[in-house]
Formats: sequence, structure tokens, C-alpha cells
Amino acid sequence: MFAFAAALLASAPSCAWAQQSGNAPAPAPSMAETPKEPGGKPDADGRTKLRMQTAFNPGISVLGEASRQFTTAVKTMSAGMVSIKMLEAGAKAPTADLLDAVLNGDVDAAFTSPSYAAAKMPALLVFSSLPFGPTPEEYVAWMIAGEGGRFHHDLYDKLGVHAVMCGVAGSEAGGWFRNEMRSVADLKGLRVRYAGLAGEVLARFGAEIVTLQPGEVFYKLQQGKIDAAEFSMPSVDRALGFDKLSLIYYFPGWHQPASLIDFYMRKDKWEELPPERRALIETACRANVTWTLARAPVEQARAMEYFRKQGVVIRVWPASVMEAFRETSSDVLREQADKDPEFKAVLDDLRQFLDGPRAWKRLVRP
Amino acid sequence: MFAFAAALLASAPSCAWAQQSGNAPAPAPSMAETPKEPGGKPDADGRTKLRMQTAFNPGISVLGEASRQFTTAVKTMSAGMVSIKMLEAGAKAPTADLLDAVLNGDVDAAFTSPSYAAAKMPALLVFSSLPFGPTPEEYVAWMIAGEGGRFHHDLYDKLGVHAVMCGVAGSEAGGWFRNEMRSVADLKGLRVRYAGLAGEVLARFGAEIVTLQPGEVFYKLQQGKIDAAEFSMPSVDRALGFDKLSLIYYFPGWHQPASLIDFYMRKDKWEELPPERRALIETACRANVTWTLARAPVEQARAMEYFRKQGVVIRVWPASVMEAFRETSSDVLREQADKDPEFKAVLDDLRQFLDGPRAWKRLVRP
Repeated sequence: MFAFAAALLASAPSCAWAQQSGNAPAPAPSMAETPKEPGGKPDADGRTKLRMQTAFNPGISVLGEASRQFTTAVKTMSAGMVSIKMLEAGAKAPTADLLDAVLNGDVDAAFTSPSYAAAKMPALLVFSSLPFGPTPEEYVAWMIAGEGGRFHHDLYDKLGVHAVMCGVAGSEAGGWFRNEMRSVADLKGLRVRYAGLAGEVLARFGAEIVTLQPGEVFYKLQQGKIDAAEFSMPSVDRALGFDKLSLIYYFPGWHQPASLIDFYMRKDKWEELPPERRALIETACRANVTWTLARAPVEQARAMEYFRKQGVVIRVWPASVMEAFRETSSDVLREQADKDPEFKAVLDDLRQFLDGPRAWKRLVRP
Repeated sequence: MFAFAAALLASAPSCAWAQQSGNAPAPAPSMAETPKEPGGKPDADGRTKLRMQTAFNPGISVLGEASRQFTTAVKTMSAGMVSIKMLEAGAKAPTADLLDAVLNGDVDAAFTSPSYAAAKMPALLVFSSLPFGPTPEEYVAWMIAGEGGRFHHDLYDKLGVHAVMCGVAGSEAGGWFRNEMRSVADLKGLRVRYAGLAGEVLARFGAEIVTLQPGEVFYKLQQGKIDAAEFSMPSVDRALGFDKLSLIYYFPGWHQPASLIDFYMRKDKWEELPPERRALIETACRANVTWTLARAPVEQARAMEYFRKQGVVIRVWPASVMEAFRETSSDVLREQADKDPEFKAVLDDLRQFLDGPRAWKRLVRP
């Protein structure tokens, strides 16, 4: 189980938090001799070959498959003239350091969550693990029909990369808990693995936030070293066997209702690509968004069906607890906005944008 | 106003009903001499040039823009090697007869609603104007992660064309009514323009269903020749100036919560396309689905805001009326299924599929 779990764990989407670096770099033998060179420029045969490190290994439900869909689409459409070699999570750099690996030229491209780059650009948190944030569809609407796409481009541009939305992850589970959470008082003193802004929310109710490598979560729960942990979407949690731990599974995942997945390249390498190759990548990414939107809820429903059959105890947070999470999340976001005008500008725009489509959906899907 | 309205009306999405043929064929001068020839095969320069007639003229909100997004993406990605010449609605054949025009070779491709081809293949109604049917996102999930795509392919295949989902239209408005609808009794004797299965539902409450060309709806309402009409999405209704008629605007559009948009070509022409060109079209179509999902709710919210400012009276159907519509829609669909095993197979699969993602969404978006 360990090797399997570790391979998946290195890149599970809920691990998408900057302070949790992935596993140590372990260059694949075939890549060890590859010289550093600009990846955008066509080679002598006119071919473009990009080395892309993924944060979601191909074996991972939904996001891993999405990374393969994307590279296959680019290769097929270009009749092999543009090929993207997928390097697995951790191959050239820990997932948390993928931005640096792209900037250094260790890899040509990344397929990852914006939450990692948020270590250097906190406003990118608005595009990923935003407590009580938008649904996947709402993120996509803001990116395409609102100002989200412009903010996203400009923030990454400041970091020196050209980023393209290349998928969207759906809601995670609220996490595995040893005990029933009847009120927020039950959080006091609990040792919890919960990431980022949502971790800060739980800390305000007296939980002790424990920072763990993704690969450690399962075993620390099993050994009783922690009392609770959010990990990922049910389909990923299922692959890792979390149902074997006899814990209570909480919903919804208020800490991350959705998260973008990005493809990015260093700006100069991107600009060396001929326009039609840039368009191939952008269109394949946009098609990938459709694919992830379609696939994620179906896979989660299947995983939940499996968990029910396994007798997993599934709980919905009590209304009073959800309300407390919501209010405290609002405080935490406001404080972050007060500290960082860029974060505030992006968050304000997102919130204002959402009013329109939400009112429309209430009208037509009452 | 007339020319403008007529141009838009020829192809408004709610006109997507087979018995309502579009306006008369009016070949564009530049196309008159174009010989009939297979469109899939590359020409002497290796270029593929496709003549595609659209049901949604480029000026139409959301769907018109989507048709341009699609052709632009194909052209850009292929560096001009694949170009799709867009022929406007009615250019070579009335919209309702587009399938025949494709089969005859009068055009190479169509960009249209499945509801037109449903005149020859009623099971295609399940992909379009299905009363109390799926949301746009649910359609896409069924097409990609369920069996919807297979049914869609096979039904069109029997008609002799290769079809690709190339967009998805959101909910329409419930229509413009001269009087308040306090109960279903108010429908008795009303002269109503309402299409297809939903028209049958209203007829069962004593409404007289009037079949009109799309271009006639506005004027028949204005002249008092009909008492009510569903037309399209608010953004399209706005462009046509329906707010000038001092009618009551009803929501939601239970008769069509969503509808696919398809690209199709005659099978032999499709198969002549080299694989990378087929992939270009398929990927551009999938990207177009993302674009339409993102854009439609935003445009509708803007149109509703405009209507409110214009003082349009906006009403939600009373609960008892919605319940009656729902029950009678269920009867009408069951009777259609009893008559047509193919319709039944597709509808049953869709319903069964939806249970999974709906349960998941209830859990994570309570």
C-alpha cells in the first residue's frame, strides 16, 4: 500500500498548499541528461517538445486523467508536432516549488494548482482554496465572462509566467474526524490537519493545526497522532483507503468548494511558441475545463456510493457549526484583504461578479 | 427595426423547433457559384474549407458569439489550414431543413440545435427542449461522463451525419404573457405560441397552440393576434425589444432549462478529414462548451437588470402552476416514451444518470 499511496499522495489536490512541500526531487532517469533549453522554440524538425511537471499524477481520479486528456489533445491536434512530456509529481522539484522549477528552466511547463504559487502571490488564493468560495461553474464564468481571467493573467505575469486555466477541481470532502462534531466547542484542543485560510478558521475555535506532508496524513490518522484531517475529493480519498480508518466523514467541504487548475510556462518560452501552437494549448485547456466540470461530480457520486456500501459514517456539519465556519471564514478573509490590497481587489471583484449569475440561477432553478 | 429583428429572429434559439421552418432560402451571392463538393478532403494546397450554415446568426447573444469563437479557434489552431466559412441562418436552406442541406451537400456542416433534426429522430428531443430537463452542466456531464455522448453519436449516425456537441444553451425565459397566470385555469382559451412537448403541456390546460414563424412572434403579440409566447433567453428577447410590448415576463423557463448545440457534417465528409483536423474541430467544440456555460448566465443577468430598469413586470409562476406543469410534462414525456422505444431508452438513461451528480451536489451545496 505504501508505494501506491505515496505516489498518489504526492499530488493529491487537497495537498495544494504552499507550506506543504511535496516529496523530495527524484529526477526520472530518462530526464537526467536532458539539457536545459527553451521549450517554446521549435527544434530542427519544426517540432515543439515541452517537459511539463504535473502536480496530479496520471493515476489520480479526475485531475490525473485531466492532465492526460490535455496532453493527448495537444498531440493529436498538432499531428505530433507539439508534444508535452508529462513528468510526474516531484520528478524535477517538489510540487510546492514547481514555479521555481519553471522559472529556472528545469521544466518547461507546470500543470498545478494556483494555491502553490500563492506562497509568492497570496492573491492567487482567491483562485483556489477559498473558504465558502464559488462553485466550479462560477469560477469558470468569472474567468471567461468576468474579470477573473485578467487578474489571473496579471498576477502570474508578475511572477514571470504565462498561465492558462486548464481545468477546475470540484468540492472536496470536509474531512475525516475521529469524533462527532456537535458544536464548534468540539474542535477545542483537537489536533487537525487542515490547510491554509481554512486551517486558520479552525484554529480560532481552539483546534491545533498540524502541518503534515501529504504522504503522512493517512498514517498519522491511523496512528492516532492527529484527530482529524481534510484530504481531498471522495474519489481520491477512496483510492487511498481512508474508509479503512473507521472515522466519520464530514460534508460539505466548505474550505474548498472548488479550485482552478493551471497550466503555465515561463513567459519567454511561451512567447517563442508560434501563435497556432499557443492557440492549441489554450483551446485544449479550455476543453479540459469542460471535461473536469463534467467528470468530477460523477466520480464523486460513485465514490460516495462506495463509501456508503463500506458502512462509512457520513455526516453533514450541523447548521450551527456551518454558520460559525462561515462567519469566521468571513473574518479571516477580511483580515487577509486588509493586509494585502491585491488580494482584496481580486476578492472584491469575484464577489461582485457572482451577484449576477447567482440571481439568474435562483430565478431559473428555484 | 424589422430588418434587424428578422435577421436575429431567423435563428433565435427558442425557434429551435422542427415544425417551424426558418425563413426562405436566400443564397448569399458569393456562395451561389460554389460547386457542391466534399468538404472534408484537403484541396490542392492541403487546405480544408468547410461551408457551415449556422442556426444562430453571429449577432445573437451567447450562441451567435459562440459560433464565431468556434470558427476562430479552428482557424487559429490550424494556422489557416482549416477554415470554416459561416453561412448565415437561411442562407442555403431554412434552419429546419439544415440536416437535408448537409446530406445533399448544399453545405458541408451545420451549427444548430438537435431539436430540428428531431423531426426525423424524435429521440433527439431528449438533448434539447426537454421540459423540466437537466441544467446545462448536467447535460454536459451526461454527454462526457455518462452514456449521453454515445446515444447522441448513434442517433445522428443513423441520420447519416457525424455530430459533435459544440455548445450548450442555458435556460430560456418562461415567456411573455398579456395577463397574470394565477392558476392553470387562466390558460384556458389563451392563444399561445409555445413549442413542441411544452406546447402539448399547455394545450392540455385548454390553451390554443399557435404555430408561428420565429419572425412573426413579436408582431403577432404586438397586434394582439396571440396572447402569450415563449421566445428565447432574456438576452435575445432584449435584443428584439420584447420589453416594448408591456407584457408580463414569466420565469422559470420550465419548458427548456437547457439545450445542446451541435456541429455536424455528413459522415463521408467527416471521415475524409485527416485525424488531426477532426481533433481540432472536436477540441474547439469542447472548448466552446466551456465558453457557453460561462457566458450565458452572465448575459442573462445583465439582460434581467436591463428589463428591471425598463419597468418590465417580472413574475415567477405560482407554485401550483409549476406543479401542474411538472405533472403534465411528466405525462407527456411518458406517452412519448410509450410511442418511441428509442426516446424512452435515451430518457431513461439520462434520468438514471442524473441521480448520482444530483445527490453529490445536494451534499456539497446544501
